[in-house]
Amino acid sequence: MRLADLSEHSGVSLATIKYYLREGLLPPGRLVNATQAEYDESHLRRLRLVRAMVQVGRIPVATVREVLVQVDDDSLSRSIRLGAALWAMPHHADPDPDDPTVTAARAELDRLLAELGWRDAAELGEISPIYRELVALLASLHRLGYPQTAEDLAPYAEQMARTADLDLDRIERLDSVVEQVELAVAGAVLFEPVLLGLRRLAQEQQTIERFGL
Amino acid sequence: MRLADLSEHSGVSLATIKYYLREGLLPPGRLVNATQAEYDESHLRRLRLVRAMVQVGRIPVATVREVLVQVDDDSLSRSIRLGAALWAMPHHADPDPDDPTVTAARAELDRLLAELGWRDAAELGEISPIYRELVALLASLHRLGYPQTAEDLAPYAEQMARTADLDLDRIERLDSVVEQVELAVAGAVLFEPVLLGLRRLAQEQQTIERFGL
Repeated sequence: MRLADLSEHSGVSLATIKYYLREGLLPPGRLVNATQAEYDESHLRRLRLVRAMVQVGRIPVATVREVLVQVDDDSLSRSIRLGAALWAMPHHADPDPDDPTVTAARAELDRLLAELGWRDAAELGEISPIYRELVALLASLHRLGYPQTAEDLAPYAEQMARTADLDLDRIERLDSVVEQVELAVAGAVLFEPVLLGLRRLAQEQQTIERFGL
Repeated sequence: MRLADLSEHSGVSLATIKYYLREGLLPPGRLVNATQAEYDESHLRRLRLVRAMVQVGRIPVATVREVLVQVDDDSLSRSIRLGAALWAMPHHADPDPDDPTVTAARAELDRLLAELGWRDAAELGEISPIYRELVALLASLHRLGYPQTAEDLAPYAEQMARTADLDLDRIERLDSVVEQVELAVAGAVLFEPVLLGLRRLAQEQQTIERFGL
């Protein structure tokens, strides 16, 4: 399809598509003559993903570009590509390693991972920005007077493992690794708010069930 | 305890405590003489909650005040107090009712609620900002090219119902309704990021389990 068709099919304006092309967020089309290029399904899919990251995820363009480099790098293993995309997502500040609350939060998280048998996650530990962010969060909850023990967190972690299982089932159903990685990224950006919305709705439902209206 | 002790026990500066008192986010202490007031455990608990909402939840002071009015209003039913606090939390723009994508998203959500047997949530429907926000989110996912059917959402909603169950078990263990409502608010503000952190960690763990490193 031509650029105009790409715009029509995606609902993204020509100006925005041209901006994404200039910024390297969308790979160039296949040139059919000096002034025209052809675009295909993979462009449409990529355009959807970029728009989701930029417009909904509010991820800076430079970070989107970084994520896409990893999405497309087929010299990397599938786990690294799936994980690296998540790792490149916006994260909060790293925890201060000299803060005793941080040390306590890390010990509690490590105890949780050991109890759950999440050996891979435990092994990644400090390397993983996801792990570091969770340590910082748990430390700040502790500081605010809401400490969470491994035992408090375990049943929640088990539920989250089940949602991750559902995600990976969806991902495995796709044919190509690029599509799989794209879905992993879109899932992180777009699906987390849906999940929290479902959770709030469930809280509403169960509050009324338990206590009446 | 005196104001200075309240500051020491909570780790919140005197200036911030005085600001919260002025803004009506913290009830005044019991006057013991013309210049001194006594504060108790309930002040400490409320201070923790206000700090969590303002500092971590980044909720505007006016909204915090609104939430607290409902937390404290014992003329309201427990469900209304628990729910109203959630309802007063920041929400995104309401969906445009004339947009056909919104109509489709709402139909899908209603089908989900019917399938799950969440009759109370279905009955609240449009009245609930949580419901409206989820409609808007699902419509925007649809527009971005990631439509979700009731069947896609059902297993996630069931997992979220289990986490809500855990929350309400925790809440029911507390003695007073005020403490229960405070925990519900703190849970929404502070615990949602923890949950997403656990989810990302679970995704990391399961990705490596399925695909190797």
